[in-house]
Amino acid sequence: MSKQAQFLSDNAASVHPAVWDAMRAADDADAPYDGDAQSAALNEKFGALFGRECEVLWVATGTAANCLALASMVQPHGAVVCHEEAHIEMDEGGAPGFYLHGAKLLLADGKSAKLTPGDIRAVIDPIRDDVHQVQPHAISITQASEYGCVYQPEDIAAIAGLAKERGLALHMDGARFANAAAFLDRPAGEVAGDVDALSFGFVKNGGMTAEAIVFFDSQMADVARYRRKRAGHLQSKGRYLAAQLHAMLDGDIWLNNARAANAAAQEVAGACAERLMHPVQANELFVRCTAQEREALRAQDFAFYDWGDDAARFVTAWNTQEADARALSAAISGL
Amino acid sequence: MSKQAQFLSDNAASVHPAVWDAMRAADDADAPYDGDAQSAALNEKFGALFGRECEVLWVATGTAANCLALASMVQPHGAVVCHEEAHIEMDEGGAPGFYLHGAKLLLADGKSAKLTPGDIRAVIDPIRDDVHQVQPHAISITQASEYGCVYQPEDIAAIAGLAKERGLALHMDGARFANAAAFLDRPAGEVAGDVDALSFGFVKNGGMTAEAIVFFDSQMADVARYRRKRAGHLQSKGRYLAAQLHAMLDGDIWLNNARAANAAAQEVAGACAERLMHPVQANELFVRCTAQEREALRAQDFAFYDWGDDAARFVTAWNTQEADARALSAAISGL
Amino acid sequence: MSKQAQFLSDNAASVHPAVWDAMRAADDADAPYDGDAQSAALNEKFGALFGRECEVLWVATGTAANCLALASMVQPHGAVVCHEEAHIEMDEGGAPGFYLHGAKLLLADGKSAKLTPGDIRAVIDPIRDDVHQVQPHAISITQASEYGCVYQPEDIAAIAGLAKERGLALHMDGARFANAAAFLDRPAGEVAGDVDALSFGFVKNGGMTAEAIVFFDSQMADVARYRRKRAGHLQSKGRYLAAQLHAMLDGDIWLNNARAANAAAQEVAGACAERLMHPVQANELFVRCTAQEREALRAQDFAFYDWGDDAARFVTAWNTQEADARALSAAISGL
Amino acid sequence: MSKQAQFLSDNAASVHPAVWDAMRAADDADAPYDGDAQSAALNEKFGALFGRECEVLWVATGTAANCLALASMVQPHGAVVCHEEAHIEMDEGGAPGFYLHGAKLLLADGKSAKLTPGDIRAVIDPIRDDVHQVQPHAISITQASEYGCVYQPEDIAAIAGLAKERGLALHMDGARFANAAAFLDRPAGEVAGDVDALSFGFVKNGGMTAEAIVFFDSQMADVARYRRKRAGHLQSKGRYLAAQLHAMLDGDIWLNNARAANAAAQEVAGACAERLMHPVQANELFVRCTAQEREALRAQDFAFYDWGDDAARFVTAWNTQEADARALSAAISGL
Repeated sequence: MSKQAQFLSDNAASVHPAVWDAMRAADDADAPYDGDAQSAALNEKFGALFGRECEVLWVATGTAANCLALASMVQPHGAVVCHEEAHIEMDEGGAPGFYLHGAKLLLADGKSAKLTPGDIRAVIDPIRDDVHQVQPHAISITQASEYGCVYQPEDIAAIAGLAKERGLALHMDGARFANAAAFLDRPAGEVAGDVDALSFGFVKNGGMTAEAIVFFDSQMADVARYRRKRAGHLQSKGRYLAAQLHAMLDGDIWLNNARAANAAAQEVAGACAERLMHPVQANELFVRCTAQEREALRAQDFAFYDWGDDAARFVTAWNTQEADARALSAAISGL
Repeated sequence: MSKQAQFLSDNAASVHPAVWDAMRAADDADAPYDGDAQSAALNEKFGALFGRECEVLWVATGTAANCLALASMVQPHGAVVCHEEAHIEMDEGGAPGFYLHGAKLLLADGKSAKLTPGDIRAVIDPIRDDVHQVQPHAISITQASEYGCVYQPEDIAAIAGLAKERGLALHMDGARFANAAAFLDRPAGEVAGDVDALSFGFVKNGGMTAEAIVFFDSQMADVARYRRKRAGHLQSKGRYLAAQLHAMLDGDIWLNNARAANAAAQEVAGACAERLMHPVQANELFVRCTAQEREALRAQDFAFYDWGDDAARFVTAWNTQEADARALSAAISGL
Repeated sequence: MSKQAQFLSDNAASVHPAVWDAMRAADDADAPYDGDAQSAALNEKFGALFGRECEVLWVATGTAANCLALASMVQPHGAVVCHEEAHIEMDEGGAPGFYLHGAKLLLADGKSAKLTPGDIRAVIDPIRDDVHQVQPHAISITQASEYGCVYQPEDIAAIAGLAKERGLALHMDGARFANAAAFLDRPAGEVAGDVDALSFGFVKNGGMTAEAIVFFDSQMADVARYRRKRAGHLQSKGRYLAAQLHAMLDGDIWLNNARAANAAAQEVAGACAERLMHPVQANELFVRCTAQEREALRAQDFAFYDWGDDAARFVTAWNTQEADARALSAAISGL
Repeated sequence: MSKQAQFLSDNAASVHPAVWDAMRAADDADAPYDGDAQSAALNEKFGALFGRECEVLWVATGTAANCLALASMVQPHGAVVCHEEAHIEMDEGGAPGFYLHGAKLLLADGKSAKLTPGDIRAVIDPIRDDVHQVQPHAISITQASEYGCVYQPEDIAAIAGLAKERGLALHMDGARFANAAAFLDRPAGEVAGDVDALSFGFVKNGGMTAEAIVFFDSQMADVARYRRKRAGHLQSKGRYLAAQLHAMLDGDIWLNNARAANAAAQEVAGACAERLMHPVQANELFVRCTAQEREALRAQDFAFYDWGDDAARFVTAWNTQEADARALSAAISGL
């Protein structure tokens, strides 16, 4: 076991060696912004992965990815339906209000931070179709969800059907898309389903400073390109970001890293049984335990966050050591 | 001379080895966002450089740096006075309108893209002090200017005096602050003068993805911290950005790199004499030459931008090779 | 009883004769915008009413009043705590998002659409004091509430105490402030309590196109003056709006009109007893009744809105005829 | 001559008797907002006037009319080309920045505050078609211009042709559209030409608080309806605004009032000859005269604004008395 076994988050983990190598290899000057060869090659590479045409923009953060995607779908007088515990609602410092120029988030409830068509309808059906009430323009779902739970392709299809029926765009926050893909063991195209845009996360999964917004709608991509610059997110040395994305896709590092993180989570999950608040499908565990139990774990040098008063959150990463996961598993069993 | 001698811009140059090393050294996980040790140490390090207390926020781009700084000074119903060719007006895709929620840029004219108190008064004095006209809240100047010209400390003092007199905040766009410091050969504190916030550029000068916003006003920094997150610019692996800034300041790499770029520019300037549209004080040259002459230079493998119909812009970088600068100098002499 | 007895809303009622007279009397040209004599006299007149200094801005709608007031208190990266059924959340077409540049509404629950300090703390206490979560900057309460219920002076004092403790500004939506004052039978200053700004409604109470924003904080008023113009709400013939406000205050028409509306509501309330969903304290009644019963009432020429599936909303106005109120009362009794 | 002859502006003139009558006649309660019969009849009435289908929204001010129209045409990352002395640039307190969420005004120069296709091209042709520069989305022209000058139908056709060629929407600020129509003596449809939306002013021309936005593009109108509510401009007693518009159109009061104002301006213009800075085609005169001369006129009880140091602005209104115009004419002749 490491000196301190880190289960706080995957968001500060080290960068994968292949990513370092790719960045180094990009060091020769190329055209600035997204005019370099690697940025230009992203559409094709992601298109092959998803099995359909797409346009890809790199950005530095998931918040920027989510909000630029949504801003290309939602007019300032509209709204986005999302889960009440979605990252865009809870953890992005009001970025959606900023990027969407005051458009609203309409909060739906749903099990394990996932939404069903019924959950969404419960929010949008009562809205009168008049100018006094803010009208929904888009739906945003999170794959895997804030509680580490995964939408099956048919779940997404049902939501996409509702979106189409109501004339709403569909966005997927895929900060942990790779973990969902690893869990489902299905092609990326099916893990994403029929969404209009996907925030495809790499930073939590071995990248350094590059996330991808994957647009399956060309007009939305056109808007987002202007908005990215306008938001100060068009970096002049963009080749270092593009290189990260290529490195992650080459040789399926994105998928292998996620598999490793998921496996570590399963290792821990084995010890949690009835303590689990949500099924463990990705790399997060929400585990019921008392303050005393948490203290006991911390005394054994495990680092993690409290989750309210009666639970703990453990997050594994692509580089969580097997020994650490086993040790945590044993420690939880021994509580 | 290199295969192709690149004088297009400094914004895509390679990353300095010391920056690479510092980033590598930051690879061990630390607290996310700006909770890591290196981010925490920035205030003190920059404070020592400027000789007064300051608060430093890293961001990925100069556009974000400029706009977050201005957003902390200007209310949405206010305005910023800037040069009509300032970067915030010409090249940031409308980012100030976005970050400042519709506040206005009031455009002043001034020689070599620098402003004098008189230039500024010419813009603000005619504004009636009533609600029908947008009132200035801040001034933004660029050190070195868009034409590579440098404000002397007394120039800045005069502008700061006007700002104080009129109750305006003062911002400095220092995308090439290092080049100005190298030219002036004065302490950083004097090169910045009495500004409230400085966008201190590193990306053009050997960094990769990190610029610094240096706040000399604590309340503005407080606002900017929230706005940075809200703009999706609070990166989770912020330690890699903080590391770049530390690397650039340690051993005065920021200054030495700028000196090298300036020296290369002087090498070229020597050949330009009456062709120069502006004095060469930093690392940019604006050189009168015909389309035919530009063609001739390009035929000799020099890369650069046209500047209108009758001129060319050459930009040197920290890593411009002496041989390339000499070759360009010779080629211009030979026109 | 009138041909059709109107209990749909008070928001389209006729204009009081004294208001018409005052508007007519303002017909001679005076200085434009708010430079006329009547606009200039508003501060003093409202100051006398509230027993403390204030600055008064007229605007055309309650939405503009609420949002301009809030925009003077809340930064774009902040939030307003309000009831989840508040007008600003439910019925203003997203105007707070527009006027506050994307600031957020934090929704609290509370009985009869009123808030207690406990309701507010339940929303703000869980907010981590970091940049990832939107921080509250203000509280907005509604006097009388969306369900026609009235805050007692001590209720407001408790909320104002909490606001002060937490550094939050306090706004009161007084679209039906007059009805609250009529119910409480206390001086206006006590009905408003220690708020920073009050949206004082007149349109629902006999006015035509003029509401007042009453600022008890001079700096907020300064901001709002610019924002009013910027929102296109500074009408050039403002004297016709100022005249309406003077007319309503002169001879206590605002209070007498509200008393009449409240009395009509009490007349109806007498017949409703256990059907009432909320106490009737102002001029709105929320009455449990079946679809069949509502049909029966409509067959007797009463106009009103359904309130969900199992209730009706009746609103009386300053000019509701006693005969109509009695007739409705009888009709409900006869159900 | 009146006690004081008012040539300050037309924006605070009295309300036309027919407008008063129509407002009175609207006093019986009708459906709120724009659900009343008169609001519903506006599309047809304006459609008849313009000879083509249109959708009409009332608002209280020209600023709101202009900005709501533009907000329906321009995305937040876009820009509007307008004259550098246009009302939206000079006199609306930054409202375009607010309503358009930070979109930019691109300022063109042009004689007498009118634009030609050449003036517009001079602004938009240098804009690089990339994300670093803000792209134009619309053109806004003013009929009659800020200097009281009128576009001929062929002038507008030329601009509309350019707009179509470049994919730009076309807006007309018609705060004094009636004066232009009176001057041209052509049908309203020709005075407007092929614009997408017209801000049709009535307040300066005998109305009280109602301007019309006339949309010839149905999708823009759809957006504007939501934005009007969101801006707090959907008044609940909208019938009083609709009534004003009907009154102005019935019996051509809008045109007759403008003719009267124009005639008064011509009366004065006769005395100004070489003093005129711009041709007098509507109801504004810009007259060269010294400070001493202006003092002399004021000593004779004429009220007007200085226009810089060497000129005066005189504005006539629908109710300018012939005696006053003659007196001013004589006084100027006598200087």
